[in-house]
Amino acid sequence: MGFEYLTNIPLEKAQEEYLSLLKNNGFTPKTELIPVFDACNRVTALPVYAHICAPHYAASAMDGIAVNARDTFGATETTPVILKSGQYVIVDTGDPIPEHCDAVIMVEELVQNEDATITIHAAAAPWQHIRQIGEDICVGEMILPALTKVSPSAIGAMIAGGVLEIEVIRKPVVGIIPTGDEIVPPCIDPKPGDILEFNSSIFSAMLKEWGAEAVVYPIVPDKFEQIQEMTAKASDECDMVILNAGSSAGREDYSAKVIESLGEVLYHGIAIKPGKPAILGCRGAVPILGVPGYPVSGIIVIEELLKPLIDHWMKVPAEQKQYVKAVLTRPIVSGLKYKEFVRVRMGYVGDRLMASPLSRGSGVVTSFMKADGILEIPQGLEGYEAGEEVEIRLLCSLDKLQNTLVVIGSHDPLLDELGNMLHVADESLYMSSSHVGSMGGIMAIRRGEAHIAGCHLLDTVTGEYNLSFMKKYFPKGDVKLIRCVGREQGLMVAKGNPLDIQKFADIAKEGVRYVNRQKGSGTRILADYLCKTEQIDMASVYGYEREEMTHTSVAAQIANGSADAGMGIYSAAKLYDLDFIPICVEEYDLIISDYAWNTPMVQQLMQVLKSDIFRQKLMELGGYTVDNAGELRSYE
Amino acid sequence: MGFEYLTNIPLEKAQEEYLSLLKNNGFTPKTELIPVFDACNRVTALPVYAHICAPHYAASAMDGIAVNARDTFGATETTPVILKSGQYVIVDTGDPIPEHCDAVIMVEELVQNEDATITIHAAAAPWQHIRQIGEDICVGEMILPALTKVSPSAIGAMIAGGVLEIEVIRKPVVGIIPTGDEIVPPCIDPKPGDILEFNSSIFSAMLKEWGAEAVVYPIVPDKFEQIQEMTAKASDECDMVILNAGSSAGREDYSAKVIESLGEVLYHGIAIKPGKPAILGCRGAVPILGVPGYPVSGIIVIEELLKPLIDHWMKVPAEQKQYVKAVLTRPIVSGLKYKEFVRVRMGYVGDRLMASPLSRGSGVVTSFMKADGILEIPQGLEGYEAGEEVEIRLLCSLDKLQNTLVVIGSHDPLLDELGNMLHVADESLYMSSSHVGSMGGIMAIRRGEAHIAGCHLLDTVTGEYNLSFMKKYFPKGDVKLIRCVGREQGLMVAKGNPLDIQKFADIAKEGVRYVNRQKGSGTRILADYLCKTEQIDMASVYGYEREEMTHTSVAAQIANGSADAGMGIYSAAKLYDLDFIPICVEEYDLIISDYAWNTPMVQQLMQVLKSDIFRQKLMELGGYTVDNAGELRSYE
Repeated sequence: MGFEYLTNIPLEKAQEEYLSLLKNNGFTPKTELIPVFDACNRVTALPVYAHICAPHYAASAMDGIAVNARDTFGATETTPVILKSGQYVIVDTGDPIPEHCDAVIMVEELVQNEDATITIHAAAAPWQHIRQIGEDICVGEMILPALTKVSPSAIGAMIAGGVLEIEVIRKPVVGIIPTGDEIVPPCIDPKPGDILEFNSSIFSAMLKEWGAEAVVYPIVPDKFEQIQEMTAKASDECDMVILNAGSSAGREDYSAKVIESLGEVLYHGIAIKPGKPAILGCRGAVPILGVPGYPVSGIIVIEELLKPLIDHWMKVPAEQKQYVKAVLTRPIVSGLKYKEFVRVRMGYVGDRLMASPLSRGSGVVTSFMKADGILEIPQGLEGYEAGEEVEIRLLCSLDKLQNTLVVIGSHDPLLDELGNMLHVADESLYMSSSHVGSMGGIMAIRRGEAHIAGCHLLDTVTGEYNLSFMKKYFPKGDVKLIRCVGREQGLMVAKGNPLDIQKFADIAKEGVRYVNRQKGSGTRILADYLCKTEQIDMASVYGYEREEMTHTSVAAQIANGSADAGMGIYSAAKLYDLDFIPICVEEYDLIISDYAWNTPMVQQLMQVLKSDIFRQKLMELGGYTVDNAGELRSYE
Repeated sequence: MGFEYLTNIPLEKAQEEYLSLLKNNGFTPKTELIPVFDACNRVTALPVYAHICAPHYAASAMDGIAVNARDTFGATETTPVILKSGQYVIVDTGDPIPEHCDAVIMVEELVQNEDATITIHAAAAPWQHIRQIGEDICVGEMILPALTKVSPSAIGAMIAGGVLEIEVIRKPVVGIIPTGDEIVPPCIDPKPGDILEFNSSIFSAMLKEWGAEAVVYPIVPDKFEQIQEMTAKASDECDMVILNAGSSAGREDYSAKVIESLGEVLYHGIAIKPGKPAILGCRGAVPILGVPGYPVSGIIVIEELLKPLIDHWMKVPAEQKQYVKAVLTRPIVSGLKYKEFVRVRMGYVGDRLMASPLSRGSGVVTSFMKADGILEIPQGLEGYEAGEEVEIRLLCSLDKLQNTLVVIGSHDPLLDELGNMLHVADESLYMSSSHVGSMGGIMAIRRGEAHIAGCHLLDTVTGEYNLSFMKKYFPKGDVKLIRCVGREQGLMVAKGNPLDIQKFADIAKEGVRYVNRQKGSGTRILADYLCKTEQIDMASVYGYEREEMTHTSVAAQIANGSADAGMGIYSAAKLYDLDFIPICVEEYDLIISDYAWNTPMVQQLMQVLKSDIFRQKLMELGGYTVDNAGELRSYE
């Protein structure tokens, strides 16, 4: 958009120079003295030496008597020795060995006489049955080296060694300053134009996971002096500062100027996408990172540019990033100028790990939430072809991916409910669903990218749903068609139906703003078919080209008054409290690939489909009929 | 010793039946409502649905003007349209779209006229350059399914969806009751017989790592009524209870009786080692686990019997245990009756992963701290041979093992200092050292079990250290001999030398209690040699058979008055403030295997050996000479 960032520095160069500048400025971890009880997972700043021995006294390892071994020398089966009172002390296991004693004789090996003497028939070796001082830990021994993460058992060892406080690396305190006139604290009823400030909550959680502490400062309006004042305060109080938003080069973007006024800016503009307007600045030894306002950009910038500083501070090797090879389901075009980070969803289909790029919009925070991995496209590469094998940085375990049912196809909110019920029934199973319409689902199954597709395609010749499409696209019969639900399709209109829409043809009336579904979706195919049969000129329908990807997003536009009518299912209309003009009941089935059929994931899903709890949920959502859910439909 | 536990139930059976009994009794996770800001890594109890759309208003995606697209229809390059004031609104990126507007025209594509009208040369498509309501999240959409761990970006998505509080699985509260007359709170000057209560600190840290909360109750003496009262209180207040110690069948072991009096005991005695006296009990839905007092036993019992309950409560699949194949360096004999858990240290030597069993004593808490893995020997197996490949459960990362220098051989406190300096110089490098004496070190190198061995062996014929041993044991010359330090050996005696020990031969004097080093250690070989040259009858030296494994543990016995004299190095005597009678200066060298020589670990160690900081540390320890540390010694 016409902005010129001052620089376009390759990421690795920026990372290196930033850390090196900061180190020169004195950026180094601080330490603190804490009780060992609280030290689990903290990192020692110095080696820890034992102050006392463990055990700290010589203890009897048996129940019996403590003696001086010299007094027993010569005792044998034939020449027993009699110990007089005073020559022995009765001890239990764990009791300290009395002075002048240096051996224990087990109770089983002695004869107690009536005159309080004791007869023994074997000499005691010095130090037999005694747990020696320092058997576990000796005074002065190094219990833990410096820069070592404290484990639970290390806490025990330190206490046993008489160490009750240790010097550890202090958690770095990271101040987060949200800025922007339009930014408001989280609430449930924001006004149009308000932007909810949730970046600081995301960043705080990330920082906490990395071992840092986050301090969130109040939201500062777009005023240079106020931002400057808050940044000065935060850099006084914290070890690192995140200045959120205001990092691009627009009119109200003061971040770079503020940082320059307080310290220095190393670079403004890094060759990464999203995240290019990042500012690498500092005030002395305190890094001040200018982070773009879009959440996805912010997450990437903090991961790539702040985490290395935290890792350097924490002094423990950062957890290794895990990479895995996967096959791309769609091509990705990337700019040559940037290293790009693309969020992907992944799933094992058969034994191939597939990766599907998620939305690349920097504002789409759910794309990060849903991501199973990140595809890092190097600077200078134009992208990848569909079907190409790429390396993906994992954000979840491979184990989870192996137990994730990949559902691609027609959208219905019931899919989320099914996914939830599947996971509740067996916590080790997951479902990941993407909405690309019924035809998209069929293609995904054909390409081996999905286990299951939701499908509701009307054969306009036979009036039947799905069967003829199955014959056409799966002539080998290598997939199963499973009945799911019947569902009411119709027109959603605003509550009270102010424009008096009565039938499908009314979408072409003057003053009606229609909102459509994307091409390839079953609902769009139905709408196109209805236009044809009712002889409506699509071009004359205002908004017919306006496409949404789900029933709920169509409903959302109508509920918010930006459209007057749209095709969708009853449950979406009900959710948004819209009026609904029924048009037909369609059959929404599931196409399931044969190779997935016998997996625990699919078998568990079949259980759920047939369950009362599923039926009950559908009744709640409304507009569904469930007569034979889970039944196999023959399409030969 | 001679106790009969009531049962000897196989672990898996005990685990299953315990969980099933508890579930029958109503053991089930509780939930709580918490702010989303605090929800990172918590587990959703219910699916989370969006309350508002994100974006929650239609927003301009560009700087420009908002218009009603109908007003622009027909505009072309040759037939421009003029928009009058009132027909457009100036908007910046992110601004809400005014009512009656449904398209944005970029500032670059319009001509502002002097009369406040605007000329456009192309029609606007409805909804162009507008970020639609619900592009990211729609009202009613499921943001997260139930039983899902909340990630940082999910927190952002929930706030964006107007969700500020969510129902999550409450952290289970585990009460820990330490019992025992001899148990005292951690302190730095315990009296003989006192046992420091550090189990609850270890257990608390473990519980916290697993997502639970720990409540530690005051120490209860060995009185039935008091233990009963505290256990009743804890089981009222907590979700689970650990009754620590008192779980064996001895005189003062009330745990089982207490649990029976309050609820029921499922089993007392599990077929595991350590940990067999464990008690699986409950009071209704509250599990009460009787845990043995020895720390290692306690850790195993809590891992094997309490963690499954916590995992069940947390409703997320437990982290997969990681297993790895390794070669045993020593044989292990195990009882057929138990499943045994043996702590091992591991290291890559060449490309073989070696596992060396650590002390199997249940009281040796450092054995857990030092462990890199656990060898689980199944019930019914007699053990393993040295050299056998076994499966080890990893307690650290393979990456750490690949960067760990394995040092096996003669003990010197300087090895711990070297290890510390190595790790501080490069945080990704570690040292693991075991003390088996100089000869043991040579053998470990020969068997390929160690990278480095510390060695100080006197050739009594030549008077030289180490060289002749190298020729004998490494005739192929496939190891390097590196100079480390010269160190003063001598007799350590109590401060003030009360027994007036003047020379080595005095260890045979009447009334002198000697403490020796283990056979195979360089110091023992020296002592044996001195006995021979000075014609001392070893059998006449009191305590000559009493063996300690390190210089410091010899010093500890003398300092604590349980011995009068022992051979050792000056630094150990200094550490314990003992008097020292010098006998000789010996050459303590490092034997380094050739295949390890070029690794970063060894090269970094060579840097450290030659550093001023190392030299300075040795001066502090005392009794060392460092003239050519790091120099290669030829032994051909």
